[in-house]
Amino acid sequence: MTAHGIVLVDCPDEVGLIHRITGVLRGDGLSIDSSDQFVDVARQHFFFRAEVVATQPGAAADPLADERLRQALAAVLPAAAVVRVTRPERRPIVVCATREPHCLGELLLLDAVGDLPGRIVAVISNHGVLRELTDRFGVPFVHLPAEGVDRDAHEAALAAAIDAHAPALVVLARYMRVLSAGFVTRYPGRIVNIHHSFLPAFAGAQAYRQAYERGVKLIGATAHVVTAELDAGPIIAQDVIDVDHAATPERMARAGRDVEKLVLARAVRLLLEDRVFVHGGRTVVFD
Amino acid sequence: MTAHGIVLVDCPDEVGLIHRITGVLRGDGLSIDSSDQFVDVARQHFFFRAEVVATQPGAAADPLADERLRQALAAVLPAAAVVRVTRPERRPIVVCATREPHCLGELLLLDAVGDLPGRIVAVISNHGVLRELTDRFGVPFVHLPAEGVDRDAHEAALAAAIDAHAPALVVLARYMRVLSAGFVTRYPGRIVNIHHSFLPAFAGAQAYRQAYERGVKLIGATAHVVTAELDAGPIIAQDVIDVDHAATPERMARAGRDVEKLVLARAVRLLLEDRVFVHGGRTVVFD
Amino acid sequence: MTAHGIVLVDCPDEVGLIHRITGVLRGDGLSIDSSDQFVDVARQHFFFRAEVVATQPGAAADPLADERLRQALAAVLPAAAVVRVTRPERRPIVVCATREPHCLGELLLLDAVGDLPGRIVAVISNHGVLRELTDRFGVPFVHLPAEGVDRDAHEAALAAAIDAHAPALVVLARYMRVLSAGFVTRYPGRIVNIHHSFLPAFAGAQAYRQAYERGVKLIGATAHVVTAELDAGPIIAQDVIDVDHAATPERMARAGRDVEKLVLARAVRLLLEDRVFVHGGRTVVFD
Amino acid sequence: MTAHGIVLVDCPDEVGLIHRITGVLRGDGLSIDSSDQFVDVARQHFFFRAEVVATQPGAAADPLADERLRQALAAVLPAAAVVRVTRPERRPIVVCATREPHCLGELLLLDAVGDLPGRIVAVISNHGVLRELTDRFGVPFVHLPAEGVDRDAHEAALAAAIDAHAPALVVLARYMRVLSAGFVTRYPGRIVNIHHSFLPAFAGAQAYRQAYERGVKLIGATAHVVTAELDAGPIIAQDVIDVDHAATPERMARAGRDVEKLVLARAVRLLLEDRVFVHGGRTVVFD
Repeated sequence: MTAHGIVLVDCPDEVGLIHRITGVLRGDGLSIDSSDQFVDVARQHFFFRAEVVATQPGAAADPLADERLRQALAAVLPAAAVVRVTRPERRPIVVCATREPHCLGELLLLDAVGDLPGRIVAVISNHGVLRELTDRFGVPFVHLPAEGVDRDAHEAALAAAIDAHAPALVVLARYMRVLSAGFVTRYPGRIVNIHHSFLPAFAGAQAYRQAYERGVKLIGATAHVVTAELDAGPIIAQDVIDVDHAATPERMARAGRDVEKLVLARAVRLLLEDRVFVHGGRTVVFD
Repeated sequence: MTAHGIVLVDCPDEVGLIHRITGVLRGDGLSIDSSDQFVDVARQHFFFRAEVVATQPGAAADPLADERLRQALAAVLPAAAVVRVTRPERRPIVVCATREPHCLGELLLLDAVGDLPGRIVAVISNHGVLRELTDRFGVPFVHLPAEGVDRDAHEAALAAAIDAHAPALVVLARYMRVLSAGFVTRYPGRIVNIHHSFLPAFAGAQAYRQAYERGVKLIGATAHVVTAELDAGPIIAQDVIDVDHAATPERMARAGRDVEKLVLARAVRLLLEDRVFVHGGRTVVFD
Repeated sequence: MTAHGIVLVDCPDEVGLIHRITGVLRGDGLSIDSSDQFVDVARQHFFFRAEVVATQPGAAADPLADERLRQALAAVLPAAAVVRVTRPERRPIVVCATREPHCLGELLLLDAVGDLPGRIVAVISNHGVLRELTDRFGVPFVHLPAEGVDRDAHEAALAAAIDAHAPALVVLARYMRVLSAGFVTRYPGRIVNIHHSFLPAFAGAQAYRQAYERGVKLIGATAHVVTAELDAGPIIAQDVIDVDHAATPERMARAGRDVEKLVLARAVRLLLEDRVFVHGGRTVVFD
Repeated sequence: MTAHGIVLVDCPDEVGLIHRITGVLRGDGLSIDSSDQFVDVARQHFFFRAEVVATQPGAAADPLADERLRQALAAVLPAAAVVRVTRPERRPIVVCATREPHCLGELLLLDAVGDLPGRIVAVISNHGVLRELTDRFGVPFVHLPAEGVDRDAHEAALAAAIDAHAPALVVLARYMRVLSAGFVTRYPGRIVNIHHSFLPAFAGAQAYRQAYERGVKLIGATAHVVTAELDAGPIIAQDVIDVDHAATPERMARAGRDVEKLVLARAVRLLLEDRVFVHGGRTVVFD
């Protein structure tokens, strides 16, 4: 490990964990630029993230160095510890979307202007309508129609299309199909979804109509890691936008699009920068 | 009407309403300082609020002038029109609370420092714990224990205690008893309540524990007009506060208290300034 | 005027203005869907905006109808009244930018996905770097290098390039050249600019470095109408994003880009929907 | 140290600091509940905060244990290290105010309802108007008139009144006198101030009038540590509230009061919970 790296550890909490981790880093000639640590006291679980730099120019640049560091850390930590050593590089992302362009467009644009710490390698959709937008950014568009195809077959095709790009992250940018538990478990902790959120809660196709009828004053969005239980995965980011009585269902929907794209982009950035841990149904986000 | 007055109209929409209203105001020697108008297109309902001043010093100061204006407006409007003429005066409020001091304290403080467009004339509680706080502000405290009393009897006592003060507004500042439909209909559109709100929704005594378990990133509060249907009345104001993974259930609860008191105070101010219309399950708020 | 139109009036305040306006509208067979009215009491100035629909299908569709309505309104209003009658159509916009893509990209994207109430007909830049992004959206890119050209000549070329498209609005999306008073007065109230804003204020190329040194906790952005006095034009929209001590100058700059693009897009929408009046150095925004 | 303690370290950065600190903590039988660490890379300075608990019930409860821990930490750290060991106890605060009650009232109320991690032991004012509010909460009020008293004499009296209570923190809650550099250096890092903030900046008695004239859309507040340079001390917390064109200077001032009291209360809580480091003109806030 030469230049910059990120070290991530999570494990059952016990005395002296940071002391042991920092001992290994120091022994490896690594200096800590920044670090975050958190203990979930209720669950007795420990989370650690550090950005490190090599203190001597001669430190090994070969990829094996990362794996050696990982093993050295694992050797001093509890057997259940999950240790990761990563580089702040622009890893590949696959975006799945259906018809709505706002979230996909935001991600394509951030990527195009260099404001996304990753790169979109493919867009997959069950409809063709987003092809034109995707083409504008020179990103491959894969159209996988779902009508007349049985769900297992469609998911198999989807998985194949995703796996062809070996993405670090799969982003559901208003992808309107429910994914099976079997599909989701192929990409543990690596699928992120966005949905609108309301106080009180409304669901379904008529959500903005219901929100209007109820006269809500806030329109929200929630980005979460996708787990087998639909829309109940660990929350990464949330935000809201004010609306008032004069907002028609259409204007509420526009406010919803604005907040959805922001919240999804924030969650994608956090995931790509390895700032999110998932444990016990909730996230730890070192922002 | 001499100095300043507020004119409020709501009725089924039809052509020429503003023209007729402003004709009456003009004929009465009243100038419009500010006005808001809104048509709920879906429900074909019209809402109007104006702050007016007399253009000539000799305008009648007697209370009858307001009633005459009200009748003159009603005469040119549809039969179903609700017309109100009010003065920006500090009208009486009764606050009901149970054990939690944050919302009550905020209102008492705003009143004490002159930042509430009303005055708290009594605090009624089913517990005694808030007496000390109330006494600090020299406001009468009425303790109406509910234990061992049947609900009808308790509500009758509560209504009597409220009515003794003829309040313009009854504020439920974390009042933890469910009010019967019969009770609520005694004070149509004149009871306001606050409750915490979450995305997704959690309810009950363990709400902050659930929010913690779910790892929410926002804690919200909703103030609403109380109707017969519990916690489903028309929303007046909502807001949220950010929290993160490090927030314990206790810190989430503190964030909840902070946002609840703000949102309730905002709703109370809006109501006291006659800025809120309720129609068809939603509010129109001319802020 | 048949389907939908917007009526805008501002003039010195006097008694009966709304009554006169609504009388004309009613006489013309127009019903008011929504309207806003405001009197700036300090300046004794009146502002009115209404969205109107024809109540009878036979109402004239020809463009002359709008002008007739405008004249009918002017006839009953003070001589100094400014009366406009517009249609909610997607009017042409020219965007000027220099090197930074975030604001331009947001506008191009909103236009491409149908979320901008206008259409970008040209992008003009004093640098070539944004051509690629502009080309992605099929929008003409005009490169007007400023180096080695004297300011008057450059502004003349700029004005010619703008005027070739007869835009309703000129958007400075991080256009980094100071425009002369003479240039600005060619487009009164029709140029909008965005800049970052800080508490306390920092300026110049090193603004984010200064903000970092000072440890600010908020990064803001301000969109304003451009007037002859640099960066001091009437404010249309403002917003902020939280940052903390861990934000490097680079992350602060990214937060700045995020909030700038949001605030500029909001201001552009407000302007295109004819929701902004400018008077006496400030705006009235009917949102 | 038995139950809970807080360990704070800041010093020039060098390799292995966390390893050494955690070694000492571990050797002392202390477990880390939560910790935060930050390196200001530009200044090469290290900041560390941990909440610790004793892992064995027999750990010494006497106050000497804290000092022994402090010395043990200092022994392994650079000579320039500042090491503090504190307990999460409700330390004494003195509040200085002049005429405005909103910030003082918020702090008194939070203290009264148990939502302030400290206790107000005295209120000192150069005017008498806040005595009644202070009396409501049973807090001693010290009136130190400044008129006709020379500044040095007044500051000497102020210092004596403060020192009589040996406060951990001096809160300027709209205290409208400028303090001399000599006075401020008596309480290094222990005086916190609040002031309103605007984009762009306005100052002086007519700030809200200027903000109104300029048509700002946000009213902000900044809480900062007081240093010799007036209003330029390290920023602890900032926030804003939306306003619109209809907000009169009076309503802007009310919005200002609302945001000022919130931001000041947040800063006071952060300081009392030992979450704020001051270094090189900026703060590190472990929230």
